[in-house]
Amino acid sequence: MALGKVYLVGAGFGGPEHLTLKALRVLEEAEVVLHDRLVHPEILALARGEKVPVGKEGYGPKTPQEEIHRRLIHLARQGLVVARLHGGDPMVFGRGGEEVLALKAAGVPFEVVPGLTSAVGAPSLLGLPLTFRGRARSFAVATGHDPSQPLPQADTLVLLMPLHALTGLKARLMERFPPETPLALLARVGWPGEEVRLGRVADLPGLGEGLPSPALLVVGEVVGLA
Amino acid sequence: MALGKVYLVGAGFGGPEHLTLKALRVLEEAEVVLHDRLVHPEILALARGEKVPVGKEGYGPKTPQEEIHRRLIHLARQGLVVARLHGGDPMVFGRGGEEVLALKAAGVPFEVVPGLTSAVGAPSLLGLPLTFRGRARSFAVATGHDPSQPLPQADTLVLLMPLHALTGLKARLMERFPPETPLALLARVGWPGEEVRLGRVADLPGLGEGLPSPALLVVGEVVGLA
Repeated sequence: MALGKVYLVGAGFGGPEHLTLKALRVLEEAEVVLHDRLVHPEILALARGEKVPVGKEGYGPKTPQEEIHRRLIHLARQGLVVARLHGGDPMVFGRGGEEVLALKAAGVPFEVVPGLTSAVGAPSLLGLPLTFRGRARSFAVATGHDPSQPLPQADTLVLLMPLHALTGLKARLMERFPPETPLALLARVGWPGEEVRLGRVADLPGLGEGLPSPALLVVGEVVGLA
Repeated sequence: MALGKVYLVGAGFGGPEHLTLKALRVLEEAEVVLHDRLVHPEILALARGEKVPVGKEGYGPKTPQEEIHRRLIHLARQGLVVARLHGGDPMVFGRGGEEVLALKAAGVPFEVVPGLTSAVGAPSLLGLPLTFRGRARSFAVATGHDPSQPLPQADTLVLLMPLHALTGLKARLMERFPPETPLALLARVGWPGEEVRLGRVADLPGLGEGLPSPALLVVGEVVGLA
């Protein structure tokens, strides 16, 4: 039997308007869609094949990553066209990199369909530039939740889902930025309940109080310009 | 007369398949499209309104940024729906941030439509993860062409269009990474003539010889995994 194919597809952030034309086409063509739990319901509604939720760490029950690999390989070996739908981009803070290695090792044809990661797309949607001529020439993206990890160093820093770690983050941010550096907390961008709070590094952790998840923190001079 | 509206639209990288559904809708609706010269012709072909090329620094003749602002504001004040089409994402290494400030100052309604920046989308398309569980927890993006600028510090580093500066870059990269760190040069991803070269920091600048532009450099342990 002919091998099928696996598409690792980025759903982007928020609703279907940020989906790419290629992601839409693959969703319409796939016979099975293994999807993150956090993907927008209106995006899932565009998929015509069987939908199988697979867990994503940090969001309720999770499917072990090796089990996802087994399922992708098994389905492709049945000759099926499979979409593995990731929130954002498959290769940024997802586990798409591990899926690429597993599919390569199994000899299963695959293709990555990039999507808009919220780390870049959410600030952009809100008119917040990550770089700015003469003022911010670089940006870095990391998760904020592991206090043992040094924060990256760049003119603009974007941290994903740091709400439960804002207290510890303040001290780590102050190693990189003066306390008066502007920052923005962006919650649920592109979803109902979107909320933006502007402040300074010194305003942490209070600035984040009661903010819904998932959230992004953007810090740097660019925030003051916007 | 009623004010029009300006959409700052990201065309993404490469051809139209990486365009978002919203970008497509805006291109179809806009009465005038001011576009970067580097936007793919098949994307421009989707625009129904009048097309006006405006220069982008580094690529042939350029339109002064203030002139772009004046045109956007003038067109919106005539009641028109205007798309300002940027390669990649408008808020990442474009001058969309300046356009946002100018439109705000003029009281012109605007909206940003995020697009896939090649810095993230090109490695993703090629199956190259920017982060990897337990191995690379952050990434940073910068331009590589100004030797006076320190490179950002992150597990994975993406540099845009560094070809004409590869010699100087080697020394700067070796301040951040051991010489055996894997790197990839990605040229014209999503365009005809796409080319990928894998090597190590120590292989610069020779590894880039004869490579077409525009190119990206990705350096970090993730390159060795892919």
